Amino acid sequence: MGGVGRPGRASRNVNARAFRRPMRPGVFRRRRTVDTFTRVHPIQAVRWAPDRNAVRIIDQTALPERFIERDLRSLDDVCAAISSLAVRGAPAIGIAGAMGLVVSLDAFDDGSLDELRARIAEHVQRIVGTRPTAANLAWAVSAVAAEATRPLGSAAAALRAMRDKADALLADDAAMCRRIGELGESLLADGARVLTHCNAGALATTGIGTALAPVYVAAERGRRVSVLACETRPLLQGARLTAWELSRAGVPVRVITDGAAAAAMRDGRVDLVIVGADRIAANGDVANKIGTYALALAARHHGIPFYVAAPTSTFDAATASGSQIPIEQRGRGEVACIAGRAVVPNEVPVENPAFDVTPAELVSAIVSDRGVHRPPFRFDR
Amino acid sequence: MGGVGRPGRASRNVNARAFRRPMRPGVFRRRRTVDTFTRVHPIQAVRWAPDRNAVRIIDQTALPERFIERDLRSLDDVCAAISSLAVRGAPAIGIAGAMGLVVSLDAFDDGSLDELRARIAEHVQRIVGTRPTAANLAWAVSAVAAEATRPLGSAAAALRAMRDKADALLADDAAMCRRIGELGESLLADGARVLTHCNAGALATTGIGTALAPVYVAAERGRRVSVLACETRPLLQGARLTAWELSRAGVPVRVITDGAAAAAMRDGRVDLVIVGADRIAANGDVANKIGTYALALAARHHGIPFYVAAPTSTFDAATASGSQIPIEQRGRGEVACIAGRAVVPNEVPVENPAFDVTPAELVSAIVSDRGVHRPPFRFDR
Repeated sequence: MGGVGRPGRASRNVNARAFRRPMRPGVFRRRRTVDTFTRVHPIQAVRWAPDRNAVRIIDQTALPERFIERDLRSLDDVCAAISSLAVRGAPAIGIAGAMGLVVSLDAFDDGSLDELRARIAEHVQRIVGTRPTAANLAWAVSAVAAEATRPLGSAAAALRAMRDKADALLADDAAMCRRIGELGESLLADGARVLTHCNAGALATTGIGTALAPVYVAAERGRRVSVLACETRPLLQGARLTAWELSRAGVPVRVITDGAAAAAMRDGRVDLVIVGADRIAANGDVANKIGTYALALAARHHGIPFYVAAPTSTFDAATASGSQIPIEQRGRGEVACIAGRAVVPNEVPVENPAFDVTPAELVSAIVSDRGVHRPPFRFDR
Repeated sequence: MGGVGRPGRASRNVNARAFRRPMRPGVFRRRRTVDTFTRVHPIQAVRWAPDRNAVRIIDQTALPERFIERDLRSLDDVCAAISSLAVRGAPAIGIAGAMGLVVSLDAFDDGSLDELRARIAEHVQRIVGTRPTAANLAWAVSAVAAEATRPLGSAAAALRAMRDKADALLADDAAMCRRIGELGESLLADGARVLTHCNAGALATTGIGTALAPVYVAAERGRRVSVLACETRPLLQGARLTAWELSRAGVPVRVITDGAAAAAMRDGRVDLVIVGADRIAANGDVANKIGTYALALAARHHGIPFYVAAPTSTFDAATASGSQIPIEQRGRGEVACIAGRAVVPNEVPVENPAFDVTPAELVSAIVSDRGVHRPPFRFDR
């Protein structure tokens, strides 16, 4: 099997690879004796299949009922996986699209370079078209496609360059997660009880996640960390995905409804909140999954630190404050129907904002791959 | 058809009866021209069937997909309706049980008084046993049963006395709702945008509800009032029931997820919050459906009044403060399964507290059937 950034390297434990990096060799294999934290094995949402001719993803539409890995080999496979949300989370979608572009072109390896380039244009359009507003997807797929515009001797050489670029993006994304985890882990003392929202974990990236990265690193280093996961209506990413990946990795996790978070804080059962971010304005206002703002208010009321963990790519210097961030209104069905049953009367309208904005003054710190940023925030440089 | 407290009185509009009271005759029939509020028709969750030999309920397990009224004629019918939550809400359960006791004994009308009394004991035990912790059910059923212990000439006379008592309880409950509505309606200005949680409406009582009573009365008096209903996980009473009854009554309502409430307040789209209560401690701390506390915190942060509307019977003088109120932990399935599908991994624990406690200092006023109580609250008298 091929590990991240180490093609062809055999591994006894696939999940271990996320922890095997040049910078901290041996971390994962070191034996620990602290409770259940001896081994922390985050899953890997997107990787190469062993023969490297397919993108292997965890099908997130089947979770938590079934754990299914799918190998995406054709253009249709790749597009279907992205549009069906089998792969989700901005970083994971971007890398899956970039890797998918490469495997979807394998058959053109012995044709002409011109033919390959024509196919690339067609495939890029198809893949990017699956999620037209996903900036990260367009960026990653275009970055891989751009490799083939360089002066190259053959289609095979172009495909090799594209594959190397996809590999580099995959490694960069995993490394970004790892840096967030290492920079943020000191925020979690031994015994820390973390509350999180939605899924900003390994399932949303190709590494160990963003909001959950500090949790994984702290657990890996032997600290007893546990997580309270808000279920995150309407799509229940907390219940379905965060609970699944933490549990599978060996990190104790419990699920609560979103409305139960404030009472848990009042009861003294939360030491800190960590969430991800969809966009961070220049002044530090944070757009994240709907429900985040209520958690920030409750955390402030109870004197509990509220942290945001997100890659630098989330910082939007062009947006001065959160009031300028457009809030996507999503479809009625996500709120009004559950598992095919109507839970809201047909004649009653629904509001379904995808995000809310947490003002910077409620944020204790933002952990990025560049450092732990404390207020007053200035991300417009 | 038999109206509340007016047996045998014919009515052209069943729903209008909740508004026809001796104190304010003609209120309902007065024509108004304000928008959609000319007619406000709250449903009636529990009433006599036209022939008065059955309890007619709205089957709340079928809502909002189907509107089904069921006539409970036998002891089995009554017990099944209560235990299946076809009828729910403490006041509605109590009255349905009390009325159900009467109809379940109709067949013993021409037997001996001793035989009737033996049957009463048996039926009371069965009915109260359906919801052993529902204090209101035990109280209402026992009050009706006690009528038969008086010196009476025959089984028929005893049954008449029991029926009169059930009628009186039904009228009292509806009158209690009406008083809360009339005392609380002045809190709602024309154009008021109300946020509420769970269902403390007509479906939970035999009248126009508790938290929703001021909404119905304000709308009935021509004020343009609209409601934002939090869906209320895990059981979605807001989405399923509050949305349904308000919409059916002609009051504009929209549904949001619980996590979206704070952002709606920040956006300036909520003028006041009104919720019900399960128990109110002597110091004014309020136990109510899980998620209420988060709404109270957000309301306070945004300077929005937070009101509780509940009958005096909810005041618990024996409980000094909210910290002494035991919080029922309900089953895993309510959170972990939706419509038969697992949304939480099997191996991950769930916390499912039924209630939370909102401290008195976050409550702007409590509206009861006795008045509008402002802080500092003292209910220990």
